[in-house]
Amino acid sequence: MDMRRELHLYEELADRITSMIDGGALKIGDRLPSVRKLSQQEGVSAATVVQAYVNLENRGVIEVRPQSGHYVRARNQIVADEPRIARPSNVATRPSIQDQVMQVYRSGSDRSILPLGAAYLSSELLPTEKLNKTMALVARTAGGVGVAYDAPPGCLLFRRAVAKRSVGWGAPLKADDIVATVGAMEALHLCLRATTKAGDTVALESPGYYGLLQLVESLGLRAVEIPVHPRTGMDLDALEDALRRHRIKACLCVPNFNNPTGSLMPDPAKQALVELLARREIPLIEDDVYGDLYFGSARPRPAKAFDKSGLVLLCGSFSKTIAPGYRAGWAAPGRYREQVELLKFAHTLANATLPQLAVSEFLANGGYDHHLRSLRKRLAEEVAQVRDAIAAQFPEGTRVSRPQGGFVLWVELPPSVDARELQRRAFQRGISVAPGPIFSAKPRFTSCVRINAGNIWSPAIARGIEALANIAQDLVRGR
Amino acid sequence: MDMRRELHLYEELADRITSMIDGGALKIGDRLPSVRKLSQQEGVSAATVVQAYVNLENRGVIEVRPQSGHYVRARNQIVADEPRIARPSNVATRPSIQDQVMQVYRSGSDRSILPLGAAYLSSELLPTEKLNKTMALVARTAGGVGVAYDAPPGCLLFRRAVAKRSVGWGAPLKADDIVATVGAMEALHLCLRATTKAGDTVALESPGYYGLLQLVESLGLRAVEIPVHPRTGMDLDALEDALRRHRIKACLCVPNFNNPTGSLMPDPAKQALVELLARREIPLIEDDVYGDLYFGSARPRPAKAFDKSGLVLLCGSFSKTIAPGYRAGWAAPGRYREQVELLKFAHTLANATLPQLAVSEFLANGGYDHHLRSLRKRLAEEVAQVRDAIAAQFPEGTRVSRPQGGFVLWVELPPSVDARELQRRAFQRGISVAPGPIFSAKPRFTSCVRINAGNIWSPAIARGIEALANIAQDLVRGR
Repeated sequence: MDMRRELHLYEELADRITSMIDGGALKIGDRLPSVRKLSQQEGVSAATVVQAYVNLENRGVIEVRPQSGHYVRARNQIVADEPRIARPSNVATRPSIQDQVMQVYRSGSDRSILPLGAAYLSSELLPTEKLNKTMALVARTAGGVGVAYDAPPGCLLFRRAVAKRSVGWGAPLKADDIVATVGAMEALHLCLRATTKAGDTVALESPGYYGLLQLVESLGLRAVEIPVHPRTGMDLDALEDALRRHRIKACLCVPNFNNPTGSLMPDPAKQALVELLARREIPLIEDDVYGDLYFGSARPRPAKAFDKSGLVLLCGSFSKTIAPGYRAGWAAPGRYREQVELLKFAHTLANATLPQLAVSEFLANGGYDHHLRSLRKRLAEEVAQVRDAIAAQFPEGTRVSRPQGGFVLWVELPPSVDARELQRRAFQRGISVAPGPIFSAKPRFTSCVRINAGNIWSPAIARGIEALANIAQDLVRGR
Repeated sequence: MDMRRELHLYEELADRITSMIDGGALKIGDRLPSVRKLSQQEGVSAATVVQAYVNLENRGVIEVRPQSGHYVRARNQIVADEPRIARPSNVATRPSIQDQVMQVYRSGSDRSILPLGAAYLSSELLPTEKLNKTMALVARTAGGVGVAYDAPPGCLLFRRAVAKRSVGWGAPLKADDIVATVGAMEALHLCLRATTKAGDTVALESPGYYGLLQLVESLGLRAVEIPVHPRTGMDLDALEDALRRHRIKACLCVPNFNNPTGSLMPDPAKQALVELLARREIPLIEDDVYGDLYFGSARPRPAKAFDKSGLVLLCGSFSKTIAPGYRAGWAAPGRYREQVELLKFAHTLANATLPQLAVSEFLANGGYDHHLRSLRKRLAEEVAQVRDAIAAQFPEGTRVSRPQGGFVLWVELPPSVDARELQRRAFQRGISVAPGPIFSAKPRFTSCVRINAGNIWSPAIARGIEALANIAQDLVRGR
C-alpha cells in the first residue's frame, strides 16, 4: 500500500519548484537551472527534468524564452494555497441536492449569464465549425442508416474509434467491450443500475460531481463520501476504512481530474484502488470524461488499465472535449457488459445515429487529435489565468486548486463566506457559479465554490472574477 | 360506464359492412350502396357514411372507381377472424423476457434478415432524403448551438412544435408542459420512475409491447396484465377488477393502436379509463407513438384529452413516423412534470441537439404533414396486403388482427403451433418475426406472432410470408 503514495518523479520535482516560487525562493523573472544542472542536483534523469518543466509550463507557472532557458512566469500573484482535504465521514447519506443544482445547469444555457458555474466549455473552444460541417457531410451521405435505429451496443464505427484510442491510454479495449450511451451520464447511470439496487450503499468522492450525487439520489442509493485530496485524488485509507464499516456495493471515482478539484490519482494509487476493491469483489465505476484534457506530458491512464478481473466499468464521452450537444458517450463495463447492454434497451433504446457517425468521422480523419493538442494548451492557460485572478483578488486566506487537467477550479474561501449567499448575489449580477454544498450530500464545503475556466479570457470574464471577489470581500466583512 | 362501449357511428357502420363482406353477403366486385341510399337505410348522416367508406378504403376492404362508386376490393381472401381477447389474470408477475427479445431487436439492424419482427418502418417509407438534407442544413447553420448542451426541458423550438400539433389531437399542450426525451422509450422510463418505485405494482396491456415489459422488469416493478380487446383496446372491466385486487401505482396504456394488436380505444372508453384511474389518484402513462398513423378519417385523440387532474403522463416521439435514429421523443407528464425534468438530468442530461432542431424544422416547414398524408395511405395498403397474404396462406383457423392504424399485425395461429419454434425455424431461413410469448410476462400467446408490415410489398416479402405459412403448416402437421 506504500505504492499509492509514490508520485511520478517529475511531478514531485514540479511540485517542489512550484513551492519554491510560492514561497518566494524563486521570483518572477528568475531563470531556472538548466536541465543538466538540475538533473545533477536532484539526482534524477534529464528526461524527468524536461517533463517537470513541460508540466510547469502547462500549468502556467514558468515560460520558455527561446535560446535562453526557463523563467518564472510573470503572473499577478501566486500566493493561494490549495484547498484542504475534507475529513472522512462514516455515515451513509441519502443525497438530496437536486433542487440546488438546477440553477447551475440552467444558467449554462442562458447566454445572458456569465458561465462560471456549469463545467461547460465555451463553443469558441470547441471545434464547432469543423464538427458541424462533418455532421452536415455525414447527414448528406448517410441515407437510410442516418434515420434508422442504431440498436445496442451501438454504432460499430464509433465503438471501433473509441477502442483504437484506448490503446493510447494503456487500457486497450475491443469494440465489443463497448456500449454506446447518451453521454457519460447515461453510461454512469447504466453501470450503477447494473451493479446496485435501491437501498444499496455506494462510495463516492467528496467533493464530487453533483450529477453523480443526483444520480445516486434518484436511484434510491445511500452514499458514503470518501475525501478527495486536491492533488492526488480519493483518499484510499479513508476508502479502506469505509469498506470495513459499510456494505459498499460499488465505488464511483473520477481518477483523472476529479470534478471539482482537478486532482489526478498517481498510477500506483489507481492500481491500489483497483486491487483494494477487487479483493472484495466490489465494482469500480470510473468516470474518465476529463482524461484527454491533461496539462502534463502524457495522457493519464484510467484505473481500468490496472483491471485484471473485469470489475472496472469505464465510462467516457466526447462532451468535455468536442461537443456536449452530440451526446456521444460510451461504457466499457467489463464483466457487466451484458447487463449494461440490456439496460440500454430499456433506458433509451438507442443513441441518435448521425451525431455518433459524425464523431466517428471526426476521430478517423484526425480532427480530434489536432483539436486536442491546441485545446489542452489553451485550457492550461485559461485555468492559470483564472487561478491567478482569483489568487490576486479574492479575500486573504482563499485557497485555490491547482488542477492538472480539465477546466474547473475549486476555491475554498474563508470560513465566514457562505457559498450559497455568494451564489445568490453573483446570480443577481448575472454571474453563475457552482456553490460548494452541491458537491456533497452532507452540509459540507459551505465556503467553497467551483469556478468554470472553460472560457476564453476576456474583459467580461475579468470583470466577473472581480465582481465575485468583491462579493466575497463583502461577505468576509459581514456586509 | 356504458359510454365506454359506444363506438363512433362510422366505425360501427364500417364494421357491419366488413362483416357482410367476410360473411359473403357482399362479394368481390360488388358495388356498395350510394352514400345517400345507405344514409337513409341506416338512419345515419351522409357524413357518417362518407367516413365509413373512407375508413374501409383505408383498411383496403373497398375501393373507389371514379364516377362510378364504391366496390368491394379484389383481395386474395378475406376470411381470417380477429384474434381473441386474453383472459384476465389476477396474479402480479415480475416480467422476465429480456433475453428472448434481443433476437427481435438485433434482427432489425441486420440487413440480411427479412425484417418482419421488430416494429420498424423501412427507410424507404421514411422521408429519409428530405430529413437528412434538413439535418445537413441545420448542422451547417447552427453554429455554437449545435455543439452545446440543450439542458432540460430541452429545445424550445421542438417543444413548441409538439405543442402546436397537440391542438389537433384535442389535447392542447403548452411548450412548458413538455420535456424532450431520447425517444418515447426514455419518456416512458422517466414517467414510470416519477410515479413508482421498485416493488410497486403497475397495470399494463396484455398482449403489450415487450419494451414496456422489459422496462417494468428492469425497474423491479410487478406487472398486472389487463387483457386487450383486438378492436377496442384495454378491457376496462378487467382493469377495474385489478384495481380492486392490487395496490396499483400506475397504469401503462397504448390507447391508439396498441402494439401488437393495433386496437383503438373509442373516445368514451378513453374517457372512462381516465376517470376510473383519476377517482383512485392513479397516474396513467400513455404511449401515443402510433397516434399519427391512423387509417380512419381523423387523428384519434390521446386519453390525455380527457385529463382533468394532471394524472395523465403522455409520451410520444417521431420514431414511428419519420426517423427512429433521430431519437426525438417527448413527455407531457402533467402534475409530474417537475420530477420528470429532474430525472432527465440524472438519466441522460440532455438530448442530442441537432436531431431535435432538424425535426423541429421538418415540422415547421410542413414536411411532416406532407409525409404523414402519404405514409398513412401507404401503411393501410401495406397492412392490408400482408394481412391478405397471411389470411390466404396460413393454416386454417389462423386469426389476424384488423389494425386501425400503425403497421403491425397480430396473428393467432392454431393452438398446436409453438410460436418460438416458428421463430427459430423462420430465423434459420433469414426471416425475423416477433413471437407471441414476448408480449406477456406470463406463458401466454404461445401460438401468436407479431408481423411487421412496415415494409414496401415486394417479391421478397411475399416469399417471406409464404415461408412462414409453410413453417406454420408443418407445425400444425406435427412436422
